[in-house]
Amino acid sequence: MAHSSKIFCCFSFLFSTLSIIPLSHQLEQHPLDSLTPNEFIRVQAIVNQSHPTTTNDITFQYIGLNEPDKQALISWLQNHRTTPITAPPPRQAFVIARINHQTHELVVDLLYDNIVSDHIHHGFGYPLLTFEEQNGASQLVFNHAPFLAALNKRGLKVAEVICETFAIGWFGETKQNGRVVKVMCYYLDGTVNLYMRPIEAITVTVDLEAMKITHFRDRLVVPVPKAAGTDYRESEQKEPFGPELKGITVVQPDGPSFIIDGSRVRWANWDFHLSFDARVGPIVSLASIYDTEKQEFRRVMYRGFVSELFVPYMDLTEEWYYRTFFDAGEYGYGLCAVPLEPLRDCPANAVYMGAYVAAQNGMPIEMPNVFCIFERNAGDVMWRHTETMIPPDLITEVRPDMSLVVRMVSTVGNYDYINDWEFKQIGSIKVTVGLTGLLEVRGSKYTHKDQIDEEVYGTLLAENTLGAYHDHFITYHLDLDVDGCE
Amino acid sequence: MAHSSKIFCCFSFLFSTLSIIPLSHQLEQHPLDSLTPNEFIRVQAIVNQSHPTTTNDITFQYIGLNEPDKQALISWLQNHRTTPITAPPPRQAFVIARINHQTHELVVDLLYDNIVSDHIHHGFGYPLLTFEEQNGASQLVFNHAPFLAALNKRGLKVAEVICETFAIGWFGETKQNGRVVKVMCYYLDGTVNLYMRPIEAITVTVDLEAMKITHFRDRLVVPVPKAAGTDYRESEQKEPFGPELKGITVVQPDGPSFIIDGSRVRWANWDFHLSFDARVGPIVSLASIYDTEKQEFRRVMYRGFVSELFVPYMDLTEEWYYRTFFDAGEYGYGLCAVPLEPLRDCPANAVYMGAYVAAQNGMPIEMPNVFCIFERNAGDVMWRHTETMIPPDLITEVRPDMSLVVRMVSTVGNYDYINDWEFKQIGSIKVTVGLTGLLEVRGSKYTHKDQIDEEVYGTLLAENTLGAYHDHFITYHLDLDVDGCE
Repeated sequence: MAHSSKIFCCFSFLFSTLSIIPLSHQLEQHPLDSLTPNEFIRVQAIVNQSHPTTTNDITFQYIGLNEPDKQALISWLQNHRTTPITAPPPRQAFVIARINHQTHELVVDLLYDNIVSDHIHHGFGYPLLTFEEQNGASQLVFNHAPFLAALNKRGLKVAEVICETFAIGWFGETKQNGRVVKVMCYYLDGTVNLYMRPIEAITVTVDLEAMKITHFRDRLVVPVPKAAGTDYRESEQKEPFGPELKGITVVQPDGPSFIIDGSRVRWANWDFHLSFDARVGPIVSLASIYDTEKQEFRRVMYRGFVSELFVPYMDLTEEWYYRTFFDAGEYGYGLCAVPLEPLRDCPANAVYMGAYVAAQNGMPIEMPNVFCIFERNAGDVMWRHTETMIPPDLITEVRPDMSLVVRMVSTVGNYDYINDWEFKQIGSIKVTVGLTGLLEVRGSKYTHKDQIDEEVYGTLLAENTLGAYHDHFITYHLDLDVDGCE
Repeated sequence: MAHSSKIFCCFSFLFSTLSIIPLSHQLEQHPLDSLTPNEFIRVQAIVNQSHPTTTNDITFQYIGLNEPDKQALISWLQNHRTTPITAPPPRQAFVIARINHQTHELVVDLLYDNIVSDHIHHGFGYPLLTFEEQNGASQLVFNHAPFLAALNKRGLKVAEVICETFAIGWFGETKQNGRVVKVMCYYLDGTVNLYMRPIEAITVTVDLEAMKITHFRDRLVVPVPKAAGTDYRESEQKEPFGPELKGITVVQPDGPSFIIDGSRVRWANWDFHLSFDARVGPIVSLASIYDTEKQEFRRVMYRGFVSELFVPYMDLTEEWYYRTFFDAGEYGYGLCAVPLEPLRDCPANAVYMGAYVAAQNGMPIEMPNVFCIFERNAGDVMWRHTETMIPPDLITEVRPDMSLVVRMVSTVGNYDYINDWEFKQIGSIKVTVGLTGLLEVRGSKYTHKDQIDEEVYGTLLAENTLGAYHDHFITYHLDLDVDGCE
């Protein structure tokens, strides 16, 4: 599931951000580096200049690096080693903007400060949802009399209601009905675990362009599952709350063995480039491993990232059938990244990095602690052998395993995706996405499974609480270049 | 692959052992505890007394606990809580001994010091091989003139030859040919990596009962792969040997969070019994997890262990076709356990435990550092959620993952099996067997893959070195009792 009005937190980041943009601080830029805050501002200015905001309605749905041509980049990297004055491939931004209710795909050149191309998209599909428009849509219900009446009918307090926006999927219609979302609400009132308290059977449809409710239906009253026992905060748990373990920590008295040089990370026999994108989150590029015999780096992967997270639900009821979320393409796997909690999301030896995304107005928003990088010492063995056959002694050779982990956590509504890129000295890259957070549940009249005599598309987990059947399909873009392209 | 003359190390353990057997030290014994050194000695004495060694030829192929009846044990455990004076199930040893060239299966009672049953096995299959008989068999070749001639023909020095014994499998013969092994030799001469230097095309068949070579064939001369580049010892590597990483360690200033009470281990919400067996290695019993709501332990698994490791090779040549090893049933997954190397096989916070097995004469042999137990802090997250929807702040709850690992390493010839039982606070038990060590290779006339015009049942890995196709099938005995037997 996915959605969010994370604008609550993003706005507070926004203000702190603008003051710390290091305009004068320019390390040598790598052609694959994410856009800098300064570049975001320039992109915004260039697009606004070409379509003046006094006469145009502009929203920035996506701003990111326009990835340079692979062959051009590789040639440049090879020449750059011997001739550092060679010009890099063009530095460009790719922009998806809604301009007067049309989707523009723009390429902006950051050397010449001009628009290279401006294409209006007429095909299927819509750009990423911004936090601002999601927040706008989910607030509309609070001024919509039928919705307030529906709450009243259920005996619910308006102040305890939280609403979210849901992408509506696509079911083979030849005609698209414009940018539309549905709004679904939850009830707090004694818990912060809103996902366990859905207010079911109300359908609210919002046209994002008009920012208006175009359809409303209150189909039936279903009990809201109770708050008791749903709060997950440690402070709210009764004693005993699980076992108390004694302290355990990782210590590196001489510091970490990795070097972060701008976006380039070097560790053990590995060298790679790490960048961040609002849509796909972490991008690992040019991952190479040092060959001690050849005394050179050998490329393993040109570029890798999570390209999509597709989360279809299998519930055919009126308020659920459309839930077929693209967590990257609709909500932004990077956009939904959350600040990592030191010592909890990552161990004591982790180093943290931030990133930037564009707000709806095109201005940069800082995402602090969006990455952590740490050496994992899990107590495993990389390789070992004990030779018992050669007298008089045992020969025991053991190489402990150590790896480097790059982590991002993206919270797309109820789900927290823990996205790891792990680099192993044996030459492999291990990709992992841990799925945690909270289940998306459907409110139900049933309080015991024996009462159920129809298809409910889920499992009764607690009174009035159905865990809805669903899948998570995580796809990766992996451009492997083991020993190069040929 | 599997075999060994680990008797080299075992004999040295034997002498150190007998002096430290703590005869007077008797913790309350659990009915599932492995046999104590004192019990091994009593078993040996009881069996020898019933079949006096002056008139009988006796070898002990296996001595271990005769597992008590499950229902009797569970009843006793339940009653024992309230009535600690209840008598436990009978304490018995199970013995497989060769007595005058017949296989006896004996049950020895350790309360009454008598033999409860003595059954002669006439069916298929043979007992575990002892180290002593494997060592005896593999030494025979050095007094066998045709073998010495074969070495001479190849220009190999006798002092650099190491031989091992190989179980011969079973190919559906209705008549068994007695306890027979084949002996296969390797060449050191500049390396300790004997597995990379097989002396091919010589077949030596040994009758273990007569301890005589019954068949010898030198089929053809195949080059022994060269020693250069095969030694794996760090001390033998040229600079640069991989990347140097800075120190990293795990620190638990207040000590570990687990308690080892005899064979019972308690950690976090887990409680289990750990024992050791010559055939199967680690046995985890009565694994239970504490339910904080019910305030009681709930059983998850009655008993779990690796029951067999079957390693068939797919090479049909005369010297290879029979290689279909049962690494547990023929060589002993426990018997082949090796001492764990502190700080390398297990992290700094590990605690080590030893175990005992019986030598061929029935006397106990100490296996030091055969288990390590440690808390794994791999930097992972057990559960997390960031709630972005409830203003004004983010709610972030993260529970770092911590688990308990019980490790044994068993080196069956060329392969090192890293056997982990990992207990997770979420209630799952993760079983892992890591396969490392060295590949079993076949010597070959080929030096380049383009020369190969026949089926070679493997891949040319280096000059004269074929990596043989093979599988590893690891089977577990898992008697899960989630919430009990009913």
